[in-house]
Amino acid sequence: MLTLETIREAHARISPQVHRTPVVTSRTFDAAAGGREVFFKCENFQRGGAFKFRGATNRILLLDEDERSRGVVAFSSGNHAQAVALAARDAGVRAVIVIPDDAPRSKLAATRGYGADVRIYDRQRDDREAVARDIAEREGLVLVPPYDDYRIMAGQGTCALELLEEVPDLDALVTPCGGGGLFAGASTAAKALRAEIRCFPVESELSDDTRQSFVKGERVSIPPPPTIADGMRTQSPGALTFPVLQLTAEDVLTVTEDEIVETMRFIVFRMKMLVEPTGAVAAAAVLFNKLPPGITRVGVVLSGGNVDPEALARIIQT
Amino acid sequence: MLTLETIREAHARISPQVHRTPVVTSRTFDAAAGGREVFFKCENFQRGGAFKFRGATNRILLLDEDERSRGVVAFSSGNHAQAVALAARDAGVRAVIVIPDDAPRSKLAATRGYGADVRIYDRQRDDREAVARDIAEREGLVLVPPYDDYRIMAGQGTCALELLEEVPDLDALVTPCGGGGLFAGASTAAKALRAEIRCFPVESELSDDTRQSFVKGERVSIPPPPTIADGMRTQSPGALTFPVLQLTAEDVLTVTEDEIVETMRFIVFRMKMLVEPTGAVAAAAVLFNKLPPGITRVGVVLSGGNVDPEALARIIQT
Repeated sequence: MLTLETIREAHARISPQVHRTPVVTSRTFDAAAGGREVFFKCENFQRGGAFKFRGATNRILLLDEDERSRGVVAFSSGNHAQAVALAARDAGVRAVIVIPDDAPRSKLAATRGYGADVRIYDRQRDDREAVARDIAEREGLVLVPPYDDYRIMAGQGTCALELLEEVPDLDALVTPCGGGGLFAGASTAAKALRAEIRCFPVESELSDDTRQSFVKGERVSIPPPPTIADGMRTQSPGALTFPVLQLTAEDVLTVTEDEIVETMRFIVFRMKMLVEPTGAVAAAAVLFNKLPPGITRVGVVLSGGNVDPEALARIIQT
Repeated sequence: MLTLETIREAHARISPQVHRTPVVTSRTFDAAAGGREVFFKCENFQRGGAFKFRGATNRILLLDEDERSRGVVAFSSGNHAQAVALAARDAGVRAVIVIPDDAPRSKLAATRGYGADVRIYDRQRDDREAVARDIAEREGLVLVPPYDDYRIMAGQGTCALELLEEVPDLDALVTPCGGGGLFAGASTAAKALRAEIRCFPVESELSDDTRQSFVKGERVSIPPPPTIADGMRTQSPGALTFPVLQLTAEDVLTVTEDEIVETMRFIVFRMKMLVEPTGAVAAAAVLFNKLPPGITRVGVVLSGGNVDPEALARIIQT
């Protein structure tokens, strides 16, 4: 179950570990976005560099005694890996993280730096879910999925709880959408607190599995999407996240790769914050005017800020 | 005169225009800095991208009716130019900005974007102060100096007022030091609010005019310093700022160019904030352990965040 109540419980549970991230405004952004008033929830400043730490912490704090003593396993080459590693360390729980052999070295190093037991698999040959499930079974570990779990969604939703507490009278809430955990949790919290709020998940045009699914009314699977937004390279929305999104989303918006890059540069050079490509996607939808009419006050989740130096250098030189 | 009272008056005067910038903490930085507790005053989020907007706004709001109708002039290739242009636009005052012909195009564009009348001079041939004074005289404009003016110093000092209001029990205050306006204002405010606070200006080793002057007990002039920290390429401390610094500084600290670059990278990639090289200098002194013993709680001013894309790309690829 995913309700305002479970999200509130998650918030109480994770608050000692999780940063209450700032809500930032920018006159420059508002002017560039045609005079809208935008409130950025800065999950790029979250511990582990992304909102993922909220869900991972909630899940790990819900382990029972026996599970705690055995530990957890997660598969991810990105922010979920770091989040689970860090949340497990906080809780004194063992974490095994399954990472592909072509993951950026900096993410590998960060995950190891948080004390996780990192296992590398061959992306070409192995199925990562199968690898993780196999490890979980053989070593008696609890699998912490990246999004398709109500406890994970409730954790991610706490960022909207905080945003609406600070800015209650938003017309709309806009978040990036990969597997859909962030949007499901955040939109559930927002709708419960303010029934009239309009909620929009945003994808890259190249990774529009959720948009296609939303239009068709059922989950669609696409080939591996070649988007720069590495957090949204999921091939289909989640079995549990998608039905929530169908209830809370007014529409699924998309932005181009160029719009993502330009928005990242705007946030870095004008707003002086580092966001990763995925983290800039919701802001790009506002900056490039993808919202329907009638929306003035907009909450935007900047979902993460983990970028490799090489990737950032490429992006700012575009 | 520069006193707590004039700084408080400046604060009341400029508050409608100036951002109250956030005070940020970072577990990661604290751990890397040997367990110190560091409170970052984020002037990189200030309007115009640097603390300079505080002093410029204070000076311009102190113009009399006649001066307001004529306008102001400033010479700078950097943050002071943008600050004066923006503060003048806010006040509805004409601004002429004298900029060298080799200034980064982005700074030129930003200054023009704020509506200033930009005049280019030949850095090899012309003396910029003479050019600006000549323009001031012929066009009846008020010269707004970058630091050597008590009204400018009082404006810059307001950032320390805000910092100590939020974190009163600091052991030390550390700021970058170019011409010395920021340090003079900030240390005057801090010492008045908390007599036992220990204040440290920080320079690049390559631009240690203030350190040399402090040691010698009189103002020393050095050749143009080739530091990456373009905000501290001043060749000597100010005639008015230096005597203040002699009263309030415990010592003048220096950091290497490599330490500046490494600190910038740390702040960008670990703390997800963009600071310019000059803006990272005070943080570098803490990160590389240049403080004397007995200091736990440290206030650090991140003075600005204006970096060209090309410069940032070079720095993050180092």
